[in-house]
Amino acid sequence: MALKSFLEISPDSHFPMENLPYGVFKPDESSAPRPGVAIGDYVLDLQVIASAGLFNGPILANSDCFHQPNLNKFLEMGRPAWKEARATIQKLLSSAEPSLRDNASLRQNGLLPAAQVQMLLPMAIGDYTDFFSSMHHARNCGLMFRGPENAINPNWFHLPIAYHGRASSIVVSGTDIIRPRGQGHPSGNSPYFGPSRKLDFELEMAAVVGPGNRLGEPVDVNEAAEHIFGLVLMNDWSARDIQAWEYVPLGPFLGKSFGTTISPWIVTLDALQPFGCDAPQQNPSPLPYLAEKNSKNYDISLEVQIRPAGEETSYVVTRSNFNHLYWTVTQQLAHHTINGCNLRPGDLLGTGTISGPEPESYGCLLELTWNGQKNVSLGGTSRKFLEDGDEVIFTGCCKGNGYNVGFGTCSGKIVPSIP
Amino acid sequence: MALKSFLEISPDSHFPMENLPYGVFKPDESSAPRPGVAIGDYVLDLQVIASAGLFNGPILANSDCFHQPNLNKFLEMGRPAWKEARATIQKLLSSAEPSLRDNASLRQNGLLPAAQVQMLLPMAIGDYTDFFSSMHHARNCGLMFRGPENAINPNWFHLPIAYHGRASSIVVSGTDIIRPRGQGHPSGNSPYFGPSRKLDFELEMAAVVGPGNRLGEPVDVNEAAEHIFGLVLMNDWSARDIQAWEYVPLGPFLGKSFGTTISPWIVTLDALQPFGCDAPQQNPSPLPYLAEKNSKNYDISLEVQIRPAGEETSYVVTRSNFNHLYWTVTQQLAHHTINGCNLRPGDLLGTGTISGPEPESYGCLLELTWNGQKNVSLGGTSRKFLEDGDEVIFTGCCKGNGYNVGFGTCSGKIVPSIP
Repeated sequence: MALKSFLEISPDSHFPMENLPYGVFKPDESSAPRPGVAIGDYVLDLQVIASAGLFNGPILANSDCFHQPNLNKFLEMGRPAWKEARATIQKLLSSAEPSLRDNASLRQNGLLPAAQVQMLLPMAIGDYTDFFSSMHHARNCGLMFRGPENAINPNWFHLPIAYHGRASSIVVSGTDIIRPRGQGHPSGNSPYFGPSRKLDFELEMAAVVGPGNRLGEPVDVNEAAEHIFGLVLMNDWSARDIQAWEYVPLGPFLGKSFGTTISPWIVTLDALQPFGCDAPQQNPSPLPYLAEKNSKNYDISLEVQIRPAGEETSYVVTRSNFNHLYWTVTQQLAHHTINGCNLRPGDLLGTGTISGPEPESYGCLLELTWNGQKNVSLGGTSRKFLEDGDEVIFTGCCKGNGYNVGFGTCSGKIVPSIP
Repeated sequence: MALKSFLEISPDSHFPMENLPYGVFKPDESSAPRPGVAIGDYVLDLQVIASAGLFNGPILANSDCFHQPNLNKFLEMGRPAWKEARATIQKLLSSAEPSLRDNASLRQNGLLPAAQVQMLLPMAIGDYTDFFSSMHHARNCGLMFRGPENAINPNWFHLPIAYHGRASSIVVSGTDIIRPRGQGHPSGNSPYFGPSRKLDFELEMAAVVGPGNRLGEPVDVNEAAEHIFGLVLMNDWSARDIQAWEYVPLGPFLGKSFGTTISPWIVTLDALQPFGCDAPQQNPSPLPYLAEKNSKNYDISLEVQIRPAGEETSYVVTRSNFNHLYWTVTQQLAHHTINGCNLRPGDLLGTGTISGPEPESYGCLLELTWNGQKNVSLGGTSRKFLEDGDEVIFTGCCKGNGYNVGFGTCSGKIVPSIP
């Protein structure tokens, strides 16, 4: 590991000096929310650091961006501010720098055990868009519902397909998810009504928008990375029975809008940069507005575990990787704005379910159980879809040379429908 | 007319004492936004009235809800606050009440000529949902794209179909709309890219959400009216070529997200109450969670005019009515929350295009020109879809006995794509 902190950081930690992901937290129930950075087993309170005058670079010295209840103001400032903050925080936490290391009261106030703080949503999300950018997921869904002849619609290879999701029901990891009620697909003539019988997770990641753009002014695909602050893990919970019945012709609605969970820590593109890898070859070639000079994915290992109610053990049900995405996050962002649509700081762009090519890398139970035709094993028991009490835990991690750049976990437990 | 103001109000005005719609305005460019009510040719500045201590009822006397840059705080307070405000404003403006009538400086500060103020969006819109609740519109679209066998999908008669729209690009009446660029449906093998060739309006109205509900706690359909503050006119601009190519399988996205225009004045359900009428008989009977004790529409005459670039004259292209909706706004709201989805104050619920049964009452050019197969006449010229420079003007009005309760206009002009 190249960077050494004065804090002891386990080589297994997701949050070494190379990462420094951003979140928002409360030190205790009665405190106001404020921005923080994860470092080893600690959270660095950026409000404390800012108040101590330690953000002394030209952009941040006179900014109140860390005296806010969310990251939106910092997101809006763009990459120059993000780079300055990263350099300052990396220096402050390094073993060679005394200003925090040797100041006991500042360490006491500014470095809080992560286990003791309450994590919140890191940003106010104006709009949330969900893409459909994994070819394996698109193909599997197509095979199940349309058959092999038309598994993937012709438009899919020409543009990153997406829909607008519900921003109000996005929650932070750890929030219980109430099983939704709704109408299900009729087997006879009349639709079923009640608690969803086909509750699923969707293994996704999402980009957090930085400065955004003005209405009518598209973002060039080769500048799109400047508009992405970082990535989070995302579980786009889905009620497959509700979705199947409602989605023609206007797309997903109540089958998704009961809840979406994101991880509390946003890993920046700067921290992910060493894990960049080539994006898949696209055939046909994308139209010029989607053609990137340098088309990049990231090598992020993803894993989903389920812990049944009352059990200590959780069971891995799938392993996938962010690099399976056909459309890159920068293509997604450029496409989103090509019609002039404005993105705002804090907007969330989901990737869609990230399924790999092998059956054990599929990103949701719909695919893993082939719409309930097979079982997924959880030790002594099994699942077709989620049961009440199931906790679903996502992890994501990039493996460096002797260190990780990880996302921590994104988890949620299913609780029964309200009668 | 039962209610008499000390202001002279034309019998043709949309804004008599019986209406009192709410909006947000700036008295001049340099002023801060504040809430107002339209009365005749004037806007009543509610901040001035509140500062003068004239909101002296038990709920509003100690509230700062009219010292806000939008109506969200007032919306959140619910019907008791709305009723108190309406009673206070109606009294203040009445010919019999001296407190405003006889106070020259208060009249000078608090009653501004409507022509001189700048109208803004009345609320901060967290989420925007668009329904598809007109049977005639659903049938026409189905006939065009699927043929008579399956004109309306079976789910349509069981639930109010909807999709999530883009909140960031909602603009107030009078804002220019830039023609979107995007991919169009290929006639050969490859998609077309460029400025939309099939730009359309959609004649809609939208409900503005009041108090909203907590995540996981559905709103009962018989209490849903308590969660609706009022209605606005809405133009859900649509690029039909972009939409047709992108919308399978996840629904409308860039074909709609470049802009949505709403009227500046929210007409309250209290003002619309005299114009309530029976909603259509629903067959099959809706599931219990959608079954209303008292299923109500409103008799609101709607009209769309187009004014071509450089012309003084505008031409009526359609006349419709809000009472053509199959699913009521209260059913829409209850359905939206049945899965536990939370609505927030200021959220917008669009009705979908409101088409009537006759060809001259269809609510968009797609239907009026049958996807470009016919022309709509504009005096000496005609249209299949909108051209640059066209201004589209919606009006909506309820006819009382000697008075109107109207929505004013909702307009927007098409300007060329940015090269």
